[in-house]
Amino acid sequence: MIKVGIVGGTGYTGVELLRLLATHPQVELTAITSRKEDGMPVADMFPSLRGFVSLAFSAPEKARLTDCDVVFFATPHGVAMAQTPELLAAGVKVIDLAADFRLKDTAVFEKWYGMPHSCPEILEEAVYGLAEVNREAIRKARVVGLAGCYPTSMQLGFAPLLSQGKPLVNEAALIADCKSGVSGAGRKAEVGTLLAEASDNFKAYGVKGHRHLPETRQGLEAISGRPAGLTFVPHLVPMIRGIHSTLYATILPEARDVDFQALYEDHYRNEPFIDVMPAGSHPETRSVRASNMLRIAVHRPDNGDQLVILVVEDNLVKGAAGQGVQCMNIMFGLDETTGLKQVPVLP
Amino acid sequence: MIKVGIVGGTGYTGVELLRLLATHPQVELTAITSRKEDGMPVADMFPSLRGFVSLAFSAPEKARLTDCDVVFFATPHGVAMAQTPELLAAGVKVIDLAADFRLKDTAVFEKWYGMPHSCPEILEEAVYGLAEVNREAIRKARVVGLAGCYPTSMQLGFAPLLSQGKPLVNEAALIADCKSGVSGAGRKAEVGTLLAEASDNFKAYGVKGHRHLPETRQGLEAISGRPAGLTFVPHLVPMIRGIHSTLYATILPEARDVDFQALYEDHYRNEPFIDVMPAGSHPETRSVRASNMLRIAVHRPDNGDQLVILVVEDNLVKGAAGQGVQCMNIMFGLDETTGLKQVPVLP
Amino acid sequence: MIKVGIVGGTGYTGVELLRLLATHPQVELTAITSRKEDGMPVADMFPSLRGFVSLAFSAPEKARLTDCDVVFFATPHGVAMAQTPELLAAGVKVIDLAADFRLKDTAVFEKWYGMPHSCPEILEEAVYGLAEVNREAIRKARVVGLAGCYPTSMQLGFAPLLSQGKPLVNEAALIADCKSGVSGAGRKAEVGTLLAEASDNFKAYGVKGHRHLPETRQGLEAISGRPAGLTFVPHLVPMIRGIHSTLYATILPEARDVDFQALYEDHYRNEPFIDVMPAGSHPETRSVRASNMLRIAVHRPDNGDQLVILVVEDNLVKGAAGQGVQCMNIMFGLDETTGLKQVPVLP
Amino acid sequence: MIKVGIVGGTGYTGVELLRLLATHPQVELTAITSRKEDGMPVADMFPSLRGFVSLAFSAPEKARLTDCDVVFFATPHGVAMAQTPELLAAGVKVIDLAADFRLKDTAVFEKWYGMPHSCPEILEEAVYGLAEVNREAIRKARVVGLAGCYPTSMQLGFAPLLSQGKPLVNEAALIADCKSGVSGAGRKAEVGTLLAEASDNFKAYGVKGHRHLPETRQGLEAISGRPAGLTFVPHLVPMIRGIHSTLYATILPEARDVDFQALYEDHYRNEPFIDVMPAGSHPETRSVRASNMLRIAVHRPDNGDQLVILVVEDNLVKGAAGQGVQCMNIMFGLDETTGLKQVPVLP
Repeated sequence: MIKVGIVGGTGYTGVELLRLLATHPQVELTAITSRKEDGMPVADMFPSLRGFVSLAFSAPEKARLTDCDVVFFATPHGVAMAQTPELLAAGVKVIDLAADFRLKDTAVFEKWYGMPHSCPEILEEAVYGLAEVNREAIRKARVVGLAGCYPTSMQLGFAPLLSQGKPLVNEAALIADCKSGVSGAGRKAEVGTLLAEASDNFKAYGVKGHRHLPETRQGLEAISGRPAGLTFVPHLVPMIRGIHSTLYATILPEARDVDFQALYEDHYRNEPFIDVMPAGSHPETRSVRASNMLRIAVHRPDNGDQLVILVVEDNLVKGAAGQGVQCMNIMFGLDETTGLKQVPVLP
Repeated sequence: MIKVGIVGGTGYTGVELLRLLATHPQVELTAITSRKEDGMPVADMFPSLRGFVSLAFSAPEKARLTDCDVVFFATPHGVAMAQTPELLAAGVKVIDLAADFRLKDTAVFEKWYGMPHSCPEILEEAVYGLAEVNREAIRKARVVGLAGCYPTSMQLGFAPLLSQGKPLVNEAALIADCKSGVSGAGRKAEVGTLLAEASDNFKAYGVKGHRHLPETRQGLEAISGRPAGLTFVPHLVPMIRGIHSTLYATILPEARDVDFQALYEDHYRNEPFIDVMPAGSHPETRSVRASNMLRIAVHRPDNGDQLVILVVEDNLVKGAAGQGVQCMNIMFGLDETTGLKQVPVLP
Repeated sequence: MIKVGIVGGTGYTGVELLRLLATHPQVELTAITSRKEDGMPVADMFPSLRGFVSLAFSAPEKARLTDCDVVFFATPHGVAMAQTPELLAAGVKVIDLAADFRLKDTAVFEKWYGMPHSCPEILEEAVYGLAEVNREAIRKARVVGLAGCYPTSMQLGFAPLLSQGKPLVNEAALIADCKSGVSGAGRKAEVGTLLAEASDNFKAYGVKGHRHLPETRQGLEAISGRPAGLTFVPHLVPMIRGIHSTLYATILPEARDVDFQALYEDHYRNEPFIDVMPAGSHPETRSVRASNMLRIAVHRPDNGDQLVILVVEDNLVKGAAGQGVQCMNIMFGLDETTGLKQVPVLP
Repeated sequence: MIKVGIVGGTGYTGVELLRLLATHPQVELTAITSRKEDGMPVADMFPSLRGFVSLAFSAPEKARLTDCDVVFFATPHGVAMAQTPELLAAGVKVIDLAADFRLKDTAVFEKWYGMPHSCPEILEEAVYGLAEVNREAIRKARVVGLAGCYPTSMQLGFAPLLSQGKPLVNEAALIADCKSGVSGAGRKAEVGTLLAEASDNFKAYGVKGHRHLPETRQGLEAISGRPAGLTFVPHLVPMIRGIHSTLYATILPEARDVDFQALYEDHYRNEPFIDVMPAGSHPETRSVRASNMLRIAVHRPDNGDQLVILVVEDNLVKGAAGQGVQCMNIMFGLDETTGLKQVPVLP
């Protein structure tokens, strides 16, 4: 059994980790920290876990995280990098659901997250946690910085196009029009995501710039080995879970004869969590609700030069906690799907 | 033109007042105070008001509220009673949307609101703002404490039964199972009313005791002149606006021959904002959305001893801002429906 | 492995059965019938099942249901009773999610369902499928008529009160104010449950009479062995899944000293799917979302004579498909929780 | 007073017309037809109209539409063109909310709507009902084919760019990623728009081709006088009302110095229903809920070559009924805003 600790179990990615790990056959939940809720049984805060999780939150200093095999950070940015050195020294692996180990360039990190990076040497060895792109590196990693929710959908949506030897689309002018349920904003008391504000409503946000833009650009360039230009417009959908990314790419003249449906199917043929749907499909976010699946549909309207790629994922699972469990499975040599076979909940 | 000031225009009842008053033909909006947003144009916070409200928020001390004819308080409990003495002294009328002038017994007020009442002598002259029950008193009032949202629906739902000379139902064991949209919780940053918490979900709250219980009991007893016993269970509905109260009363043996449908129709025959629907109806909250109407349906299943009264209102209009404008119209001798003829928005 | 057939797999209870059975370790899905969708892979209609269910719908006559060990009917009322005689003759057990085998009195059935009962002799042997009340009978049953969604919540909510040797509450005047998500209306094209009609809205329906009233009254009387009087008012909540029943019962003078919290805890101490929450709790429907749990809270406001019992369940799981799997587990001698250990999905 | 008839008053655009016309000071509602509901008071179907509309539906043959000054068609495609010749002959003006008089090329109409056009000569004189583009022609029109909901947002969003003497953006590769609330699908009994299907969910649809594509392309080309290429991807948002169109256009090298914010502000300076918001804004659909306003924000991320235009409207008002009333006002020489001054409903 893998001894698992969770730092910051009171947010949505934390409770989602608990939902997944509570029934993971190879995991023993050992500690869940929360300074504020020290001593409170986890199931008192989240009654959905009654009967599944008997642990109480404990203050970080009591939690003996160094006895764990792996520690997940489901915390605000900055927490993981402060505690990771000690954990690594104790032989504990680290999986960060926040952004501390995503951006390779510390200057970019500082610009977008407003804090200096406290352990650039660990950042250097950290592996970007997106299994379908980085599986082998994850297998050997001590520290994984999990891909963000939007970046997961954008990278996996563009990857088959960008990973070819030569460009198929205009990689300088990619567009990602992304829509997310409000759980992506976290379990934080804020006016903007109140039901009375966000329901029966739709809006874009962060058009001027969003932290997931540099992360995605870095990822796309790692996939292609070439520069990438990306316009990223996130929107808030009045729903709880789910991301739908509508991706646009202009086919280059020399790639007009490519069979893009086949390209995508081939690329993801062996991936357990990627489902390239039949041509003409319109994947719905609910078709992956509460599961680690990501579904993709490839469209080329009127057989013209504009590709339209539709991608759906559950932002809390494939976009966060599920991705973390998937990486953990890889890091510990388990079957990648262990504990992740939940059937999506529909309706 | 009536010069109107609003104290606390940044919450839902405040913006709703602005929506209604902006097109009220006899009103001139003179001041809207908010210490925190001093100087910010109201329409910057609420873009829905762009083109309708050109005022900016002003800090209370700059607002010259004493130049107004009437001041609305759309503030947390306790604010109105602190400022009312000065306003009255300047000849300004006061309409409080909070609870400062609702409960006649200061001990009860202190118990439920956790603060002493600072002006009991004004409380004594204050009139309870529920036009259908108190119209004549409102006409002469200097200070109106508007009925709460739930209490409005419960009192107007029970009033035809309780206002008869002798009891028709067991007045000691009334039940009100009430359901409210989340705007009733106000425009406050709280985890419990986030969309990701409150949508696709339903729950009761405050079963042990809710501030609207003593207010409603006081109101029911004022209507009947007899003691009343009430069980009140509020619930949170995943919608923005609307209250649906399902009221239960047991018919007394001596009242078994009463035609309750006729009783209700007669009672409210001349009320412009009360609609007693045809027998067998199931009023929907959306049928009054964004309007000052309250609809009632009377049921007596199987012609037995249990009456079931269904009441719907928009909690922000008839349950708050609209009720305030209705009272203002009465206080200033206008037609009661002035500025309140909005057609409900459906769908 | 238990060979399972499903008649009528295109509705919500059908797809929910598929979700649960697809990962049930002792079940082999053998046939899913739909005349209309004959030949269509199930996962084409419900992409959430891609990778989990490879069966196609088949027309009833091709489905060889008589080769199954058990057949679930997730069909409109009337279908199960037409096909059950043949299945029983072939040694196949039957679990009906509709109402064909719920009401013991065929006259009552005819009145509420508008059709004669075609096999009253089978009805006589049929067992009412509510495991917490009827476990031993279910163990030996050949035909189970599963409890309805509302009736499950009402009966399990009232059962601890009614199952005592003598009455504790006024059993002639029970009240159930129930609220259901719209999936309870089924996957049927109807205007009333369109998102544009039912969202941001709340209403009661069926106050004059609802089919679940006679079923529940029959169940309550079976539990107590005494006559029961019930007022049942269902409401439609703008959410997908979930039932919240708010139950009211008047404590009899001789029962004023009963510790009702303890009574409930004792009654359900060994039930794997019933969670009596700590005193003062307000269970939320989402705390059981997509799981077979039912949670109960017991309130006695002001320590008076009115009991308020709050009950939540997922109408598609404990109120339908999960209840069916639970009964199947009992009928086939499996651990009752097999395949039903899903952690509720929150948020 | 203008005598107004409505053909097809039972859908969402019909009831919205009724909401707006019921309080229009210059309108007398004369007839509302519905063959199916002949004789039923309109307010029985839509209780929101109780007290505002006393008319009953009447069968078309009884309705005496030829006595009206103007008739609105809120009907399925094909109805208006069948009845318009007779109405015109009687001197009645016609405003069609469906598509019969939108597409100028009858071959295109037949291709997308699957029926021949029955009165091409009337089509020729018909005016496209988009006041901000076509005001003068509307003033003199006898027949107006109102712009569709999506096309309104796309055309008004692109118009300032395209209406310049020479191209500023790559007009061959415009992209419109549009999102609509479900009322856009109409008040029709369909599984896909049930609350249990469409809520807590997000998806694209019609990527292969949508009827609003040829209409919009025709409109854009009329605005610019040049060919236009457009990729249009509509999505379904789990909300009732509202369209949010996110428009992408690539700035041509020769236009890099244009001040696009100023361009938009100048273009719409005198439009009563178009609000170009301050730079950096993210308009929300709720900011125009239930009103005829359309709001636009202009973004140019990183001052690069990609323009991102955000447009919001209420699909039932500016996208349908409100646009119709606006055109009627123009056709009858009234102030264009008569009856259309509703303040948006927020929250």
